[in-house]
Amino acid sequence: MAEKSKNLFIGGTGYIGKYLVEASAQSGHPTFLLVRESTLSNPEKSTVIGKFKTLGVRFLTVSSNSSGDLYDHESLVKAIRQVDVVISTVGYAQLLDQVRIISAIKEAGNIKRFLPSEFGSDVDHVNAVEPAKTAFASKAKVRRAIESEGIPFTYVSSNLFNGIFLATLTQLGTTAPPRDKVVIFGDGNPKAIFNTEEEIATYTIKAVDDPRTLNKILYVRPPGNTISLNDLVSMWEKKIGHTLERVYISEEQLLKNIQESATPMGVVLSIRHSVFVKGDQTNFEIEPSFGVEASELYPEVKYTTVDEYLNKLV
Amino acid sequence: MAEKSKNLFIGGTGYIGKYLVEASAQSGHPTFLLVRESTLSNPEKSTVIGKFKTLGVRFLTVSSNSSGDLYDHESLVKAIRQVDVVISTVGYAQLLDQVRIISAIKEAGNIKRFLPSEFGSDVDHVNAVEPAKTAFASKAKVRRAIESEGIPFTYVSSNLFNGIFLATLTQLGTTAPPRDKVVIFGDGNPKAIFNTEEEIATYTIKAVDDPRTLNKILYVRPPGNTISLNDLVSMWEKKIGHTLERVYISEEQLLKNIQESATPMGVVLSIRHSVFVKGDQTNFEIEPSFGVEASELYPEVKYTTVDEYLNKLV
Repeated sequence: MAEKSKNLFIGGTGYIGKYLVEASAQSGHPTFLLVRESTLSNPEKSTVIGKFKTLGVRFLTVSSNSSGDLYDHESLVKAIRQVDVVISTVGYAQLLDQVRIISAIKEAGNIKRFLPSEFGSDVDHVNAVEPAKTAFASKAKVRRAIESEGIPFTYVSSNLFNGIFLATLTQLGTTAPPRDKVVIFGDGNPKAIFNTEEEIATYTIKAVDDPRTLNKILYVRPPGNTISLNDLVSMWEKKIGHTLERVYISEEQLLKNIQESATPMGVVLSIRHSVFVKGDQTNFEIEPSFGVEASELYPEVKYTTVDEYLNKLV
Repeated sequence: MAEKSKNLFIGGTGYIGKYLVEASAQSGHPTFLLVRESTLSNPEKSTVIGKFKTLGVRFLTVSSNSSGDLYDHESLVKAIRQVDVVISTVGYAQLLDQVRIISAIKEAGNIKRFLPSEFGSDVDHVNAVEPAKTAFASKAKVRRAIESEGIPFTYVSSNLFNGIFLATLTQLGTTAPPRDKVVIFGDGNPKAIFNTEEEIATYTIKAVDDPRTLNKILYVRPPGNTISLNDLVSMWEKKIGHTLERVYISEEQLLKNIQESATPMGVVLSIRHSVFVKGDQTNFEIEPSFGVEASELYPEVKYTTVDEYLNKLV
């Protein structure tokens, strides 16, 4: 493409949003961020806001209205009219609110691509129990709304974030990999997919104005990053030079734990059930009719394999 | 009161909702449950729905509309007109949607008491970081909307659920108490409050038609259930006859972990930061101007102390 698309981010100060905004600005896209006025003065957001400023990100401030909706309609339409692409990374509690973004895109009429908040498993290929089931269904509902409105889209199925899942070998409530004992949900055999946040962002920004990803699901499923928990633990054991005690939690026990959990822990556990017990990230083929794979599409990106990532944690 | 109030539950098949619906029906209140049609045929909900049926709970079915709102306005108004009290226990993702319940209550005009979804820390007395900060702010926003509409209310601050926090000694990703190692956020000294789900439900149902709880916060803060993590671990060690390795995670480290977490784990951790590091459940006094304490108000309820609860786990 001769000219780089103008990208508008909604939810861009969240976990994955930060990486996407950065990748967009650093690759020369005019980058806009819709933020609440209160976010700009929030001390917890000052580091990320400061970084965005140095990267030349343009802030479009809006006040959220009293009914708790995702920004007011006029602000949204006005912001959207200034750009070509809208990328949403809103969190769990705002997924369904994205219908308001869809309405605004429809009214604005100028958007070449919309990327709704996804960045996980492909929600059209999951076998989840509640409460993840409802969360995934919300994302699917947003997909169906986009399609029925005829809005051009790309859905990014980026699977697991390394910072959350690989840095901890999927252990809960920690930020470092285990060195004595490892808890494994299920039998540890289904394969999951682990990607760095930076590379998810790089692939996504490459896709926003790529005709090959138009109205497709972009899967980030590089061959070197697809691995079962059992193999992952073995790989880690080899690196640290000793074995770990493996504690297997049966599916039956996990389902019981999920039922006995309150939100949000129930969401955490039921997502893990879908990914690690049901194998929902890898138990289907990517068909050209609905999907493309990122590392095939962009072989110039030198992605970090699971093996390389673990080397840095030893 | 001569006659027991008719109670309508919204979100009654969730974690704490189940206990409340049961307590309402068992104490002789005509008990109504607003449910989506899809919930009645959801196999994961069949046990709880079956139990409600044997208790004589009346189901009011509605279909949620396509925009993802909390039920449609007419269904809500119609349901509300049949009862005296509305009790919401909707989950995290639907907190702000409760403004739709408020509008419907306003239009119906007959409601004697509304209990919004609370059942945790008192959100007007918290020092939380994101993302818990926003979740707590959503509950506070709902409070302010109720007050500005002049709707009679009771806010139930029930603090921690024993099934989640005490049964695990606050450990993450497990359902049993630890026997070798225990992770403690902060220095373990702030006190938190642990209550059984059944007793939270009993107190709440007693409060719905009690004039002493009208327009007040009902705190479930019994003296025997208020304890620091350090004392809790010592109590447990005495019961099992040996000490545990105590691993303290500093506030600084915890804040880093929260910043590096994605939703929903960030919500889990930041709630724990507020409760266990900031001491937000016990660092203020209950003033008669805004609150009443449940075990004082209802001394006839023989509540389960932390000590008694732990005895059952040994």
